This record gives sequence, C-alpha cells and structure tokens, in this order.
Amino acid sequence: MTALDWFFAIKIMKLLAQQENMNNTKIKIGFITISDRAARGEYEDIGGPAMQEWIKSAILSPYEIDNIIIEDEQSLIEQTMIDFADNKNCNLILTTGGTGPTTRDVTPEATHAVCERIFDGFAEQMRTVSLKTVPTAILSRQTAGTRGKSLIINLPGKPAAIAVCLGAVFLAVPKCLELLDDSNIQIDLDFVEQEFE
Amino acid sequence: MTALDWFFAIKIMKLLAQQENMNNTKIKIGFITISDRAARGEYEDIGGPAMQEWIKSAILSPYEIDNIIIEDEQSLIEQTMIDFADNKNCNLILTTGGTGPTTRDVTPEATHAVCERIFDGFAEQMRTVSLKTVPTAILSRQTAGTRGKSLIINLPGKPAAIAVCLGAVFLAVPKCLELLDDSNIQIDLDFVEQEFE
Amino acid sequence: MTALDWFFAIKIMKLLAQQENMNNTKIKIGFITISDRAARGEYEDIGGPAMQEWIKSAILSPYEIDNIIIEDEQSLIEQTMIDFADNKNCNLILTTGGTGPTTRDVTPEATHAVCERIFDGFAEQMRTVSLKTVPTAILSRQTAGTRGKSLIINLPGKPAAIAVCLGAVFLAVPKCLELLDDSNIQIDLDFVEQEFE
Repeated sequence: MTALDWFFAIKIMKLLAQQENMNNTKIKIGFITISDRAARGEYEDIGGPAMQEWIKSAILSPYEIDNIIIEDEQSLIEQTMIDFADNKNCNLILTTGGTGPTTRDVTPEATHAVCERIFDGFAEQMRTVSLKTVPTAILSRQTAGTRGKSLIINLPGKPAAIAVCLGAVFLAVPKCLELLDDSNIQIDLDFVEQEFE
Repeated sequence: MTALDWFFAIKIMKLLAQQENMNNTKIKIGFITISDRAARGEYEDIGGPAMQEWIKSAILSPYEIDNIIIEDEQSLIEQTMIDFADNKNCNLILTTGGTGPTTRDVTPEATHAVCERIFDGFAEQMRTVSLKTVPTAILSRQTAGTRGKSLIINLPGKPAAIAVCLGAVFLAVPKCLELLDDSNIQIDLDFVEQEFE
Repeated sequence: MTALDWFFAIKIMKLLAQQENMNNTKIKIGFITISDRAARGEYEDIGGPAMQEWIKSAILSPYEIDNIIIEDEQSLIEQTMIDFADNKNCNLILTTGGTGPTTRDVTPEATHAVCERIFDGFAEQMRTVSLKTVPTAILSRQTAGTRGKSLIINLPGKPAAIAVCLGAVFLAVPKCLELLDDSNIQIDLDFVEQEFE
C-alpha cells in the first residue's frame, strides 16, 4: 500500500471506531411526573408526554426511556430519583411538577437531597427566560444537579412552561453528559437553538 | 321562578359570596426597619416609610399594618420575624436594611434561619433589576422566603432602591399570597407594571 | 496666625493625612491557579497570568501580589485560601480553575467551606454575562464570598472567560474592599467599564 492508501485506511478505521463508540453511547433518559392528582388517576398526565415530545424533537441520536408517575411525597421522589440514577443508570432525568410554593411542592427539596452537586445556573436561566412571559416564574424553585453520572433537571408542570425551560438550558446538556459519562449525544441544533430563542 | 330566574338568583348569590370572601381576606402586612442608627434614634427611619408608601400605591384592597424599628442583631431580627409571622399573622413581611456585606448586616442570615423555604427567584430578580443602575447591587444578599403562611421579602435600605426592588418582584406577590393562604388582594396593575418597567 | 491662616493650615494637614492614609491602603492580591496538570508541570499555567494581566489593566493604585499553583484537592484549596486570607492578609483573592462539573472540580466547594458569607450576585452576574457567548456557562458553579476581610472570587480556567467574568463583576469590587477593610483602590474606569460591556 502507498502512504496515501495507509492514510485513508487509518482514516476509515478511525471513523468506524468513532461510529461504534457512538453506537455504544446510547443514553438512557428517565421521565418522572410528580403530581398527586396524576398519580391517583384523577387527572391526565400532560407534563410527562410534553417532556418526551420535546426531547424527541431535540435529540437525534438513539436513546432509551424510563418513565413513571408518582405522588408529591418527598421520600418517594427521592427514592425514584435514586433508582433512576443508580439502578436504571439514566444519564438524564427530567422531572415535571412539584416546584411551586405550596407545601405539597417538594420536588426541589428531593433534588437537593439526592444530588451531590447543584447547578444554580440551570435554575437561574430557567427563571430568567420564564419571567419574560410569566411574572410568577419568580416563585419557581426548580433546580438541577448531578447524582453520580446522572444529570437531574426539574421542570414545571405546564407543557408550555416545560418547553420554555428546556429551551433555556438544553444547549448545555450534551456537554454536561459528556463530562459526566463520556456520553456523546447528537442534538437537532436548529430545533434547540430556535427554542433557546 | 323560571329556569332563567334561578340562573340569575344563583349567579347573584355567588357574586355576594365572593364579595364576602374578599372582604374577609383583608391581609396584614408587617414592615420591619432593621438599622442600628434608626433604632437608637440617631437617624430618621426613611426605609420604613418608603416601603409603606410604595405598598399604599400598589395595593388597592384593604390591609392592616404592623411596623417596628429594630437593631441589626440577628437573634432580634429572627424573633421579630417569627412574631410577625406566627403571632401577628402577617401575610406579607417586608424588611428594609441589613443586606449589605458588612459584619453588622445580618438580615439575610435571619431570614434564612426563620424561613422554611427560600425563593431564589426574588433575590435574582431584585439584583438583576438593581444592577441596571447600580453596579454594587451585586453585593446585595437580600432574599425572600416563606414561614408558614407568611411571605418575607428583604429590601435594601435606600428608598429609591426599595422602589426598584419592589417593582421587580411585586407582580408575583398576589399569586404567592393566594397560594399560601387563599388571600385575594387587588393591586393597581398600572402602578405595579409601570414600576416593573 | 489669622483665622484664614488657621483654616488653610488645617485643610493642608487634612489633605496630608488623607494622602498618608491612601498610601497605607496598598492592598494585597492573591492569585491561586487550581489545576492538576499545571501543578504537575504537564501544562503551562495560562489562567494565572491572564488574571494578573487583567488586574494590571484594571487597578491603578499600588498593590502587592502573592501567587501559587496548586492541584484540584479540596483540602489543599481550602488551606491555601485560608493562608492567603488569614496569614498573607490578601484583600482580594482570585482563583482560576476547578469550577466545572467534573468530580475533580472542587473550587466552589472549597470556597463555600472557607467563606463566612457567599455573595450569589457574583455567580449570577458572571454566568449571565458568560451565557451571552457560551451556552455551557450554565454549568459553571463559580462563586464569591468573604472570609474575614478578604473577598474571594472564583474565575474560570480560560483566559477569555476570565476577562469576561472579571469585567462582569469588577465595578463592585472597590466598594466591597472598602466596606471590608477601609481599603481605597483606584481603578481605571475606562478599562473596567468597557470590559463591563
């Protein structure tokens, strides 16, 4: 083989290895709907499907899903987050509901309890963007953090607000997953950047 | 009576009930001036009157008032907040002073100590709006939180800064009081929105 | 001497005292580079020189310097911050590195551990300004706080990001140092305001 042949042979092997690697990093995403009424079946879960729909538009590379609907009980939320992170090995865990100011809203407390690290930037950015349309966004206590190799992000309950919040932060998610677990996800930049504003 | 008569009779009864309910929810607002010099009478309290004046322009529905001037002592601030929340049943407690970076500034510490929940959104929004005119607003540690059914908001010491901060967050206050205690206050939207910017 | 003579004599004495006082407030600035690779010499320290360069452009009054390169070990970072604050009496301590989301990034944890007070405004403002150019700025956990009379500010690792963050907050630094220790530094307002945006 000539030098050029070698050059191309190596290049192709690298590309194949990279593709293999990408296939290996099929991530897992957990969706947790936190709502007393939805858990009791008194109310249709609309937050869960809204999160899944948005993620379907945003992530192009393959991913697996886990999802559950639970009541607004702090210990139950914590157990579920721990199960999704430690046992189900979810790279990304999205929650909807339980971030308001009432006493039954305990999602942020649970998130603080199970995460080793809190990223205030997510909360700030979600509130800042939400505030442009809803003055009461100031009351949201939603946060984000990491437990081991899982990134947990709290989202509000309403589908429109979920989209606004995911759009506000999602451009940073691939880099975060990569730093946590060498995950390599492909996102639809056109969609995500348009959602970013 | 015809069906239409019944319809109107019910409608009128509902309106009367609603009005009654609204009369019942006369809220109570506590104003706490925190300043060593004002407490000792070495200095006229200007923060307290500035908060009261702003609230008078912002809230149209009736409300009762409690107010006090105290020194920058953390335990005293905590006791006063607890008294205003638990005994005087204030729905809204506004403080002025003690949010700067000096060692005598302990209002945020006291607020963190007595509140079950902290709402970072208030602090963020007050700083963001203040920063547009004062670069040192970054040094403010003022916060907000809830103790039982009371919303406590820290404000700066200067009247101009008080107005800026109240304007930055007040659109979310009625919803918060409603969620905490079914309170139903009427605000002057023209005034508050203009103060919001 | 006439009354006028006395008036001028007192005025001149006051001016001399003031000048003396200003000469006395030559501040000390500590620069801490936190990087495993730079500490082991595997990598040239670029964050440290970038911080020093920026400060040289920003501060006109005289100041002394202390600087060190250390590994990303939380206890070592804490010890170094304590030494710079309590023994070396640095008025301002700037750190670079260790603010990201990986497990080796522990600078914010160390800062929280040694500071009596945290100023969330610094973190918010640095993230807000960084976000305008880098969506992953949301992942930064950099913070700022005071230990005794020292102001400690965490900065990112990259020189361009260091400049953006210092520009975002520096207008508030002179006032903070003055409140902490009666320090009176002169800054190049043209440079700092231009860096502010």
